[in-house]
Amino acid sequence: MGSIYGKIFQISTFGESHGAAVGVVVTGCPAGVDFDLDFIQSELDRRKPGQSRITTQRKEADSVEVVSGVFEGKTTGTPIAMLVWNGDQRSKDYSHIADQFRPSHADFTYQEKYGVRDYRGGGRSSARETVARVAAGALAKLVLNQLGVKITAYVSQVGTLKLATPVEQLDLAVAETNAVRCPDTQLAEEMFTYIDEIRKQGDSVGGVVSAYITGCPVGLGEPVFDKLHAELGKAMLSINAVKGFEYGSGFDGVELRGSQHNDIIVKDEAGKVSTVTNHSGGIQGGISNGEPIYFRVGFKPVATIMQDQDSLNNSGEKIVVSGKGRHDPCVVPRAVPIVEAMSAIVLLDFYLRHRLTKLSDVL
Amino acid sequence: MGSIYGKIFQISTFGESHGAAVGVVVTGCPAGVDFDLDFIQSELDRRKPGQSRITTQRKEADSVEVVSGVFEGKTTGTPIAMLVWNGDQRSKDYSHIADQFRPSHADFTYQEKYGVRDYRGGGRSSARETVARVAAGALAKLVLNQLGVKITAYVSQVGTLKLATPVEQLDLAVAETNAVRCPDTQLAEEMFTYIDEIRKQGDSVGGVVSAYITGCPVGLGEPVFDKLHAELGKAMLSINAVKGFEYGSGFDGVELRGSQHNDIIVKDEAGKVSTVTNHSGGIQGGISNGEPIYFRVGFKPVATIMQDQDSLNNSGEKIVVSGKGRHDPCVVPRAVPIVEAMSAIVLLDFYLRHRLTKLSDVL
Amino acid sequence: MGSIYGKIFQISTFGESHGAAVGVVVTGCPAGVDFDLDFIQSELDRRKPGQSRITTQRKEADSVEVVSGVFEGKTTGTPIAMLVWNGDQRSKDYSHIADQFRPSHADFTYQEKYGVRDYRGGGRSSARETVARVAAGALAKLVLNQLGVKITAYVSQVGTLKLATPVEQLDLAVAETNAVRCPDTQLAEEMFTYIDEIRKQGDSVGGVVSAYITGCPVGLGEPVFDKLHAELGKAMLSINAVKGFEYGSGFDGVELRGSQHNDIIVKDEAGKVSTVTNHSGGIQGGISNGEPIYFRVGFKPVATIMQDQDSLNNSGEKIVVSGKGRHDPCVVPRAVPIVEAMSAIVLLDFYLRHRLTKLSDVL
Amino acid sequence: MGSIYGKIFQISTFGESHGAAVGVVVTGCPAGVDFDLDFIQSELDRRKPGQSRITTQRKEADSVEVVSGVFEGKTTGTPIAMLVWNGDQRSKDYSHIADQFRPSHADFTYQEKYGVRDYRGGGRSSARETVARVAAGALAKLVLNQLGVKITAYVSQVGTLKLATPVEQLDLAVAETNAVRCPDTQLAEEMFTYIDEIRKQGDSVGGVVSAYITGCPVGLGEPVFDKLHAELGKAMLSINAVKGFEYGSGFDGVELRGSQHNDIIVKDEAGKVSTVTNHSGGIQGGISNGEPIYFRVGFKPVATIMQDQDSLNNSGEKIVVSGKGRHDPCVVPRAVPIVEAMSAIVLLDFYLRHRLTKLSDVL
Repeated sequence: MGSIYGKIFQISTFGESHGAAVGVVVTGCPAGVDFDLDFIQSELDRRKPGQSRITTQRKEADSVEVVSGVFEGKTTGTPIAMLVWNGDQRSKDYSHIADQFRPSHADFTYQEKYGVRDYRGGGRSSARETVARVAAGALAKLVLNQLGVKITAYVSQVGTLKLATPVEQLDLAVAETNAVRCPDTQLAEEMFTYIDEIRKQGDSVGGVVSAYITGCPVGLGEPVFDKLHAELGKAMLSINAVKGFEYGSGFDGVELRGSQHNDIIVKDEAGKVSTVTNHSGGIQGGISNGEPIYFRVGFKPVATIMQDQDSLNNSGEKIVVSGKGRHDPCVVPRAVPIVEAMSAIVLLDFYLRHRLTKLSDVL
Repeated sequence: MGSIYGKIFQISTFGESHGAAVGVVVTGCPAGVDFDLDFIQSELDRRKPGQSRITTQRKEADSVEVVSGVFEGKTTGTPIAMLVWNGDQRSKDYSHIADQFRPSHADFTYQEKYGVRDYRGGGRSSARETVARVAAGALAKLVLNQLGVKITAYVSQVGTLKLATPVEQLDLAVAETNAVRCPDTQLAEEMFTYIDEIRKQGDSVGGVVSAYITGCPVGLGEPVFDKLHAELGKAMLSINAVKGFEYGSGFDGVELRGSQHNDIIVKDEAGKVSTVTNHSGGIQGGISNGEPIYFRVGFKPVATIMQDQDSLNNSGEKIVVSGKGRHDPCVVPRAVPIVEAMSAIVLLDFYLRHRLTKLSDVL
Repeated sequence: MGSIYGKIFQISTFGESHGAAVGVVVTGCPAGVDFDLDFIQSELDRRKPGQSRITTQRKEADSVEVVSGVFEGKTTGTPIAMLVWNGDQRSKDYSHIADQFRPSHADFTYQEKYGVRDYRGGGRSSARETVARVAAGALAKLVLNQLGVKITAYVSQVGTLKLATPVEQLDLAVAETNAVRCPDTQLAEEMFTYIDEIRKQGDSVGGVVSAYITGCPVGLGEPVFDKLHAELGKAMLSINAVKGFEYGSGFDGVELRGSQHNDIIVKDEAGKVSTVTNHSGGIQGGISNGEPIYFRVGFKPVATIMQDQDSLNNSGEKIVVSGKGRHDPCVVPRAVPIVEAMSAIVLLDFYLRHRLTKLSDVL
Repeated sequence: MGSIYGKIFQISTFGESHGAAVGVVVTGCPAGVDFDLDFIQSELDRRKPGQSRITTQRKEADSVEVVSGVFEGKTTGTPIAMLVWNGDQRSKDYSHIADQFRPSHADFTYQEKYGVRDYRGGGRSSARETVARVAAGALAKLVLNQLGVKITAYVSQVGTLKLATPVEQLDLAVAETNAVRCPDTQLAEEMFTYIDEIRKQGDSVGGVVSAYITGCPVGLGEPVFDKLHAELGKAMLSINAVKGFEYGSGFDGVELRGSQHNDIIVKDEAGKVSTVTNHSGGIQGGISNGEPIYFRVGFKPVATIMQDQDSLNNSGEKIVVSGKGRHDPCVVPRAVPIVEAMSAIVLLDFYLRHRLTKLSDVL
């Protein structure tokens, strides 16, 4: 349980870090979508390991294979299964942890919960599972593109290095031009140097990924439990290493007064309704209001470090866990496409649900 | 859609702020639970309006009525429907907003989404719906009590007034002895004075509710999408006015290094496994590890203020929205039982799901 | 668990036979439906006990009360809760069965499953729960009416008395003019006399309800598991006392050859595609093909009889169960509106799901 | 939508008849199950084409490949993905139907519903999808075996040839010793001859598969909508070509009186409760009562026949559909393992759900 996400556009992922493959079955994708395999592959390439020296050196082609649900280049309305075979499994790299509980990993909790675990590379708890999310998210993006929805994520913080420029003044396209995926080139260089330094020390560091979404129609999100930001929050918090989520004014907003925080509603000459400020982050009462949606996702420093740490083994004996293998000293650069993918999955799902809201739309 | 929460212990709420009643249907509650109606009522009383002069003066008895699923004082395993009739509806208070889009309320988004809305007191978008959550959450607490799980929420910030004391050094029971529900009596007084000042100005202010949960067994939460903290995050973000969620080290943790952040696993002489630090907030890989679970929930200043604000009406004409009626200048004191209720619902649901994990437990 | 039905148009029922009320929460009903309370009440009246001397003499007004989700006569898109209070509970009628396992009732299975049960009138296992289904089904009918879908159920068999006339030659409107709800007046009289005879003997007898649905567009139903007839089958089999379901050619069709059974596809001059025969019952590959949908639902003789029967009590001791109280000697007349209600719920749900099938419809 | 089945033990199937593969993702399978791949393969072999001259001559090895969720021979509690690659796809066999609506197939309904379809061999509507169900069902059987639940299906009717012997007097193991899977050897021979005759005529014929299940504990099934027989009915009706489902006394039971039909409850000297008769088919109020569960599933004559038939093409023009390729003249022999598989999936799902019923079992 727990490997299925979405109500209408629904994804079901499977696969372990060092099993045969990771994959996803997508149901509820409308029929007739031009299935742009190259685009899907390009999104996987953005997430791929080994893109620069500040990401893990695991070698994976991460080539996606489509098994069902597509015929003559179009989705058919039936389940779309996509597989990415695990090439560079190198299971021997992990044999030394068969019996170890690595600090702040899921080894101990999986062992206790299931009584058995695939210890190789973290098994199901590995972020390798996000390959499947990116493939499904790319498909969602293909549909959202036709709706004019544009989702851009970028790195806004690494350790204590923070991007202070307001998002409206940034050229977000810059983010994809550097290895850190920060839209400020100079700060990106500082971040790169910092991460590389951390890497050499065999350590890791956290960071923040911000997302900025434009072109959403009014009406996405459902009242009460399935509020748009609640579902975005769950989606983001489900990504490995995430510790916090805030949207709009977020935690800073708690210090404001209502008279400062309220977004005044206006209409321009063309009749378009908008708000003067956007502390609401594009969402009011859990439903998109047409303004840009933005949020921040906080990632902890990943637990895998190249240093010795005290711990226990399966038998409860004291051991020293030695850092070995390959790791990401800071996950946020590779987390950018994952944040986008999960955003796309959430938004498309709500877009489809929203199509059933009014009787007049349904008849 | 969007009014149902949980997979096994599932709640389905209904009702508008000024309709006949708000209520909840709980399914999946095990049979044989001693149905302590007094306890459920006492939880509703904690959430009730009019508890002090810093909460809304709407007068509601909020008496819960049980319609089904309980027989001779025990749950029978069939759906439990609970109703709270809306007494002090005073719909005339709200007739002036029939045609208004109040800033940062859901008036505009509901109107656009549905083409029709119950404008009275915000209708379904009102926090009055949380009555239903508190009733269901109280039932979940009754079961969790038997499992030794203890959930305590408290106010840790109002505006810029922050509680700095580490949670381990607090006597959380103190929180319920003051109107603000802050476990530091002196700070609580400052917060009270501050909120009362805001109230007199016809303004509002935000705040933070913290939660601290002890007694959870190892194993609650599911891998991948239904991680324990992801579901807690969604549950909290679904509460009216919430803008952010973080657990464990949260956003502060992103600045740390892995070597600082990792929680070293140790075993005491009695064989109990624990961690030296708890940056993980009691959750690793999305699954509880037996340490205390803690998180923070940020609430914006509520949108209802007693001041004039520019806005539009249903026809898109410019209007001035005048603050009238009753409101909470700061929602966090009354949000405390709601945060606890949603926590209880999430934890009991995961507890039940976890019972199906191992073949040996199931046979 | 088990009290929720549907994916988009979803109903959640609650209530026991002799509890305070039975009710339903409907979610996923589009906003803007004219909520015709009189029609909903009229459907409940068709199901009501005491309509003639061949139905149970329990006295219930079965007045429906709407608690939420409707504002100024229209559905608002939020959950619609409807309640029917139990008036003539007469719990003392049932005190004698507190400790009895009545043959072919659910007393024994509920006691074993839950360890506790509301024995009064069968509690949750009573067909009184279908009040809630009829209310929700009436709402579904209101929407289907606007789509041109017409659902008619009628009694086609009582004991060995069978209606042999092909459905195309029947005036189905006749069914509602007699107490048995058989569209053949003369046969209806024979059935009435037969049931009345059975009633005088303190016995019961089974029967068949047939359904005939016209006006369905092509495309309702989903491949693989959620085939239209599979879901109709589940819906019908979930009605109390149902033992069998067949659609189209049904069990008789198994004796035919493919060359006899296949429905040849033709097109008329107006371009309308149809089939020459309709052994498929309007469904091919689980999806409606535009032809009339028809099926048969077999009901057993109800278990409550006014005769002495051997059995056991809660303690496993031998007892004699004496028939007392009020009962239906044959349930099919009152089952007609229930079959229609469940059909409406299934069809509307599939109609809504189908609206999300093609990209061109969704954009 | 529509390709997912089950609540806890949940299967999600994918794949088209002539796509790359068919497969299934199973979630909710408990951890620690000995994953007997040979047994799963042997179940697929029972369903495989080409077993005798009365089944389709399509050549498929139907070798199952496990992609995830199994480690060192045990299930790990994470999703189990299984694939069967389509070997003998021979797509050219089907190119002639690219533009044809074959009578009583899903060609027309899929085309209308989706606007696009994989016409090769029926695409997703083909019974080849049941490969995935049999693989998942075999896994469910592995667990049910440990619980003492035994599921046996067999052919009880082909065309007008009916098995009249009461099930208690049959040796069901005999069914697997002949190509028809009928437990009466002599009748099996008659059926074989009959089907072979039909085959030579290029025609097809229907039949009935009966199922008999022993060893179920009391308590499987949920009240109201998810009654055990309602879910079994849906599962069976979802199998290709099924037109009817009845359990226990079924449609014959409608002619009986309550005094004849009621199953008297007794207790033997060992304290075991049972019923004297079993018209209830092992299910009362939707919940298993410990008696054998039995039901009948009616299959129509398959639509593919080797004869010319009038029809339309995609453009609505009249055409003659010529029978070509390979087909099953009667599907019931190969449907036997599919009926068992779906029964196993339903029963295991209810078994797991039932484990959460009583508070005392859950604590």
